[in-house]
Amino acid sequence: MAKIGIIGSGSWGIALASLLYNNKHEVTVWSALPEEITEMKTTRRHHTLPELVLPEDMRFTESLEEAMTGRDILVTAVPSIYVRSTAKKMSSFCRYGQVVVNVAKGIEESTLMTLSEVLEDELPMADVAVLSGPSHAEEVSKGLPTTCVAGARTRKTAEYIQGIFMHEVFRVYTSPDILAIEIGGSLKNVIALAAGIADGLGYGDNTKAALITRGITEISRLGTEMGGKFQTFCGLSGIGDLIVTCASMHSRNRRAGILIGQGRTMEEATKEVKMVVEGIYSAKAALALSEKYGVSMPIVEQVNEVLFNNKPASDAVKDLMLRDKTIESSDLPWED
Amino acid sequence: MAKIGIIGSGSWGIALASLLYNNKHEVTVWSALPEEITEMKTTRRHHTLPELVLPEDMRFTESLEEAMTGRDILVTAVPSIYVRSTAKKMSSFCRYGQVVVNVAKGIEESTLMTLSEVLEDELPMADVAVLSGPSHAEEVSKGLPTTCVAGARTRKTAEYIQGIFMHEVFRVYTSPDILAIEIGGSLKNVIALAAGIADGLGYGDNTKAALITRGITEISRLGTEMGGKFQTFCGLSGIGDLIVTCASMHSRNRRAGILIGQGRTMEEATKEVKMVVEGIYSAKAALALSEKYGVSMPIVEQVNEVLFNNKPASDAVKDLMLRDKTIESSDLPWED
Repeated sequence: MAKIGIIGSGSWGIALASLLYNNKHEVTVWSALPEEITEMKTTRRHHTLPELVLPEDMRFTESLEEAMTGRDILVTAVPSIYVRSTAKKMSSFCRYGQVVVNVAKGIEESTLMTLSEVLEDELPMADVAVLSGPSHAEEVSKGLPTTCVAGARTRKTAEYIQGIFMHEVFRVYTSPDILAIEIGGSLKNVIALAAGIADGLGYGDNTKAALITRGITEISRLGTEMGGKFQTFCGLSGIGDLIVTCASMHSRNRRAGILIGQGRTMEEATKEVKMVVEGIYSAKAALALSEKYGVSMPIVEQVNEVLFNNKPASDAVKDLMLRDKTIESSDLPWED
Repeated sequence: MAKIGIIGSGSWGIALASLLYNNKHEVTVWSALPEEITEMKTTRRHHTLPELVLPEDMRFTESLEEAMTGRDILVTAVPSIYVRSTAKKMSSFCRYGQVVVNVAKGIEESTLMTLSEVLEDELPMADVAVLSGPSHAEEVSKGLPTTCVAGARTRKTAEYIQGIFMHEVFRVYTSPDILAIEIGGSLKNVIALAAGIADGLGYGDNTKAALITRGITEISRLGTEMGGKFQTFCGLSGIGDLIVTCASMHSRNRRAGILIGQGRTMEEATKEVKMVVEGIYSAKAALALSEKYGVSMPIVEQVNEVLFNNKPASDAVKDLMLRDKTIESSDLPWED
């Protein structure tokens, strides 16, 4: 049994708290919002996962110190825009060598850093790892079979995390490639917007599969230039997470895309979805990264055109289809 | 304008005939079935694509000699089990250097050869290439945006095919990796069966994304051992085609899987689907290939257990989830 602090009580934090509790660990959940703590303490429910009952001996606290002290593992599950400010507050309670498993996804807009880089920046004493993969919180909370990958600098830490999270309905693989895991998880939302736009335009499964496949191709082109490994983009945290995000109506990025494809502006679509549409921020960050690293990302470019320059979505698709004829993978050899 | 013979008049052959006609080529369609030829000549329709009107100057013939003589390109689009017998009949009319684009998918059960290997075996004078990717015939015939990859031994042939097929709703990439293109296209149906079984068991998007991602991992493990390139399995003919097959109700493999997941036997499911369920043959071929090349393919193994040894589908999923803990990609380096 390990002692685990969950930092953040969104649906993913709570689904993981429940999984870890079922694995017989001692779980304490922290939230910055007193009303969330009160809700969970009194009703033993969380509004985003209404079917899940939170057990009596799962603890909830507004005190970071209480959530962090004496924990074997901390899981950071706050929204991406709060990762740096939360990490700053965490730094005074963080011991040397503390294993921190980041499950938030995103790129910090001002620095273009991944979220584990932000955590390492604020918590240099910690051993920062990540957990990512095709894992809608709703389905994990219902015990539907799910797979993830645990990325860490050392094999020892990765296998430790694997052992803590592994369950008969939650299979965990290990990986040393933290950077690629995070790039895949962050940029998938831009492609999910594009897939939603295609759905909204009335296109079919062929178009969506093309956007997903060519989407991961351009994400991996950027990510390998940044130092990630190609294989990781073809794995659970890359193509796997992208598939689940583009296929599912759980995804607000896809839903926003559908509205845009049907003719709404970006502002109208985000108002209608009523939640943060991460892909809109990631689209800007992805474009900035593609310029910084000199990598061609045609889908990301077209999504930016549609979101920020009012380009009609059908024109964007046409431009993608009619680009210069090209080879699929530029480094394979021909016989002649 | 090129002269093109389409060998086979299933839905994919006819959808490609229509695409090539729209690209201003001269198109002649051959079928072994006189009644199909008569139907198309008289009604200008094909029963599998009821919305498509076949133009007056698209030709239809029962004579292989007529369909083949003087053609710049032949497209072989017969069901996989008829590829060898059709190629045998084609050999007397096939000129030296004839470009043959194979669009049929499968592994010959008795020899474990891919279909372009079968074509090369019977038509050694031909320049055999392939076209593959996420491309449901129904959607291509409706002009929905679609992408494919043209694989050939030489860049020149690949670019020639690319130029012939490319259209504003049909984007074609080139590749030298014929073998990996065909392995991906053949073995996807086994994974589609597995994805259908998961759907039939009531599992969610997480499970399906896991099966797709780990499915392409094991297909690529086999395919690279056979000489294919890893990148190709991450491209349109690999993961792209797998995504479209696992997501869509157009796929009879997925539909058969759903029935099996709901508790039907393999025989009951195939009877209910009423069409050839390619994945059932491919499952056997995939298992034979994994044994021949000494490659671990856990999903393929479990599908075979369910299909042929009456293993309950839920036990197969449980066994997949609880295998030994492992690393995601075995060749990435750790810091320690």
